Amino acid sequence: MAKSLGSSTNIIIRIEIDKSKCTFAQVAQTIGESGGDIVAIDVIRSSGTVTLRDLTVNVFDGSVGDRIVGRLNQIEGMKVINVSDQTFLMHLGGKIEMQPKIPIRNRDDLSRVYTPGVARVCMAIHEDPNRAFTLTIKRDTVAVISDGTAVLGLGNIGPRAAMPVMEGKAMLFKQLAGVDAFPICLDTQDPDEIVRTIVAIAPGLGGINLEDISAPRCFDIERRLTEALDIPVFHDDQHGTAVVLLAGILNSLRIVGKKLEDCKVVLCGIGAAGMACTDILISAGAKKVIGVDRQGALVRTTAYENEAWNAYAAKTNPELEEGALADVIQGADIFIGVSGPGVLKRENVEAMAKDPIVFAMANPTPEIDPDEIEEIARIIATGRSDYPNQINNVLCFPGLFRGLLDCRASRVTENMKLAAAYAIAEVVSEDELSELYIIPSVFNDKVVPKVRDAVIDAAYADGVARRRDFRDKK
Amino acid sequence: MAKSLGSSTNIIIRIEIDKSKCTFAQVAQTIGESGGDIVAIDVIRSSGTVTLRDLTVNVFDGSVGDRIVGRLNQIEGMKVINVSDQTFLMHLGGKIEMQPKIPIRNRDDLSRVYTPGVARVCMAIHEDPNRAFTLTIKRDTVAVISDGTAVLGLGNIGPRAAMPVMEGKAMLFKQLAGVDAFPICLDTQDPDEIVRTIVAIAPGLGGINLEDISAPRCFDIERRLTEALDIPVFHDDQHGTAVVLLAGILNSLRIVGKKLEDCKVVLCGIGAAGMACTDILISAGAKKVIGVDRQGALVRTTAYENEAWNAYAAKTNPELEEGALADVIQGADIFIGVSGPGVLKRENVEAMAKDPIVFAMANPTPEIDPDEIEEIARIIATGRSDYPNQINNVLCFPGLFRGLLDCRASRVTENMKLAAAYAIAEVVSEDELSELYIIPSVFNDKVVPKVRDAVIDAAYADGVARRRDFRDKK
Repeated sequence: MAKSLGSSTNIIIRIEIDKSKCTFAQVAQTIGESGGDIVAIDVIRSSGTVTLRDLTVNVFDGSVGDRIVGRLNQIEGMKVINVSDQTFLMHLGGKIEMQPKIPIRNRDDLSRVYTPGVARVCMAIHEDPNRAFTLTIKRDTVAVISDGTAVLGLGNIGPRAAMPVMEGKAMLFKQLAGVDAFPICLDTQDPDEIVRTIVAIAPGLGGINLEDISAPRCFDIERRLTEALDIPVFHDDQHGTAVVLLAGILNSLRIVGKKLEDCKVVLCGIGAAGMACTDILISAGAKKVIGVDRQGALVRTTAYENEAWNAYAAKTNPELEEGALADVIQGADIFIGVSGPGVLKRENVEAMAKDPIVFAMANPTPEIDPDEIEEIARIIATGRSDYPNQINNVLCFPGLFRGLLDCRASRVTENMKLAAAYAIAEVVSEDELSELYIIPSVFNDKVVPKVRDAVIDAAYADGVARRRDFRDKK
Repeated sequence: MAKSLGSSTNIIIRIEIDKSKCTFAQVAQTIGESGGDIVAIDVIRSSGTVTLRDLTVNVFDGSVGDRIVGRLNQIEGMKVINVSDQTFLMHLGGKIEMQPKIPIRNRDDLSRVYTPGVARVCMAIHEDPNRAFTLTIKRDTVAVISDGTAVLGLGNIGPRAAMPVMEGKAMLFKQLAGVDAFPICLDTQDPDEIVRTIVAIAPGLGGINLEDISAPRCFDIERRLTEALDIPVFHDDQHGTAVVLLAGILNSLRIVGKKLEDCKVVLCGIGAAGMACTDILISAGAKKVIGVDRQGALVRTTAYENEAWNAYAAKTNPELEEGALADVIQGADIFIGVSGPGVLKRENVEAMAKDPIVFAMANPTPEIDPDEIEEIARIIATGRSDYPNQINNVLCFPGLFRGLLDCRASRVTENMKLAAAYAIAEVVSEDELSELYIIPSVFNDKVVPKVRDAVIDAAYADGVARRRDFRDKK
């Protein structure tokens, strides 16, 4: 467990000491000698000669933790019961909880929020089902739904193992945008079953955030749900990535002084995210996007087994450029990677046009180490938080869904995604904008309201907002 | 909206006043003359000559509210925009919300609760799926699921209109027992679809509370889900009612000094709740239960169209008593009503054995007005909060599910239900027990821990608890 720890962190070691055989001083000395720093001690139980304590120990990395535990276990009368690190401790019992908005203090309260008073509220909704948007949690609630087939970079790890990601997302939804999100991980990977299940649970929900569903199943699932439901459906891995990417590209182009329609864009990794990124770039005006996957540039003169690739080739690569990444990247203005580590070489970047824009977004390891091209690329963005310019979906989904819910949108439109991208880009002001700051931080509190407002305006413009227009009243 | 208001309550009237045409004094006078009492005034907006105010007005009943609104609308320059009462106001935007347990304060927190740190937690669960019980919300979370077919006494009002009830239940789960409950109302009434849907959403959940699903579909749905899932499934309308009923009966028998096995029990209304009440009474030792529905006493010599009735008749009415309620109630010790208003007559109670025990639980109007039999029945219980001895499911489900979750029970057993009933009954001590106090209040804080502990003990005894026995460590 401790092996994969990142840099300096706390671990908690639960030890049982037989005081007749060893002293706490021995324990403290051993930990210090092994490179750990005791920062807190809690006595859990003490009876007779035996005490149970939790020691919070700061360690530089996981190997220190392993060394401490190994040495402690060699002390006579000492037993290490358990070792936890902070990340695991933060997950104990899950990261979210359902809370009543008001307390039920007495019988009178109970009779209003529950039987018999609640019956009148039920009947009001029965008479006009639209009242569910004001009188139930439908106003603020979305489901974050995954089948566990494509979780982070971990692959098909199943529904239970996917839960911590969905819970984390629910935390962000609430903290950043006041959206109540409930995580649902499905015990089926069959698209028909997934669609049926989500349709069945939708009446109490205001929106559906699909998450970590593998391609190409995700395309069909999203399309069918959008047709079947009257609430918005959004596959974040596709469209969230695309929106934030576009925001970053727009600001990059402001810096280099180029127009998207003039740029040659090479996009590597034609999966769910790659296709969505291509679509939004084309919607935003890009004329020349070339998609590259393992077998090289996709071109419409080839017939691919993967139907989605044929559709992709039909709308991209207008000049039918063929060959490997190294070939088609010649003279490119923008590289976008949603593939894997090591795909992009330094010489590829050298072959790009003046002021190369490199978005190496593979997670957790980018297509190229940013340090390797620092002095030849004009702008570098990654998916990582430890480099500048992090392309992070968290910039999009909270504000997007806040907007969708606030205007009771029935669906997500292309214009909303574009509007969200422009809104995110605009958070970075002209004098803040630089090669190392093309995209705001996820903690920038201007992002959510700006995205929300942009999405709402697009919803009214597209005629999909079902709430009587409330914007003048602001 | 205001018509069905109960006794004294507050309503909130939003009015727009054109100050050039009328004064607030006129408004106040009109409200006073109509029987309302202004208790608060909030100015919402004031611009030029027009002001928008919310007046909180105490009224004795709904007709007063209607009268006030009618008269206000006759004043020149006055417009009533909206009238809300407290019950509706308590429902605005729903009654529950999803909250992060810890704030995400900075990038470091974010990297632990979300990517990249969360990946290690995901993989730990992937390696051992049982870790979901400690590292995700599965530890504390249940779904409250309804298809909206039998909501309160309102019938088949559909999923959206059922939400306020499920939300109220979720409030009680959290406030009383720390259980995180998420309400899900289904857009299908097909049993196959319902079973499939619930199985599909179960991986992140620790239990399923079925609610307000009509008979006989509820029997099949609960049975199939119990077989398909490894988490407990509990249809509260059946078993919750049965558990609390039995608790009340046990304490009633302590008062009258009879034994359940010697009692003649007549139970009226052989639907889902009636069948479950019968089952638990038989489990608790009752030898002579006679079920009565519209066509009279159920008897095994008759073949009923309703298959559930044939099964019911086979295990009840050992002496094959026939006839209407008026016939079979002769000499009965206990009457249990889960039927409708007016079913029981005073003369029926007069025909019962000494010390009649009458549980008239039809909601909202009991089988007989308690006042009518006050001096001839020894003990009277109803489902209402405005009479003594309220048989309320809230006494069971919070503690039951707290126990199920705490020991990671895989299912609900008969012994657990009996144990819960005994636990509820025991909360009323020997010196508290009286004809007017056979069952604790839903706000009695001894109920949940007692029910929880009893359920956990039964779970270990029945071999369905999956958590290593933790009870000695208490």
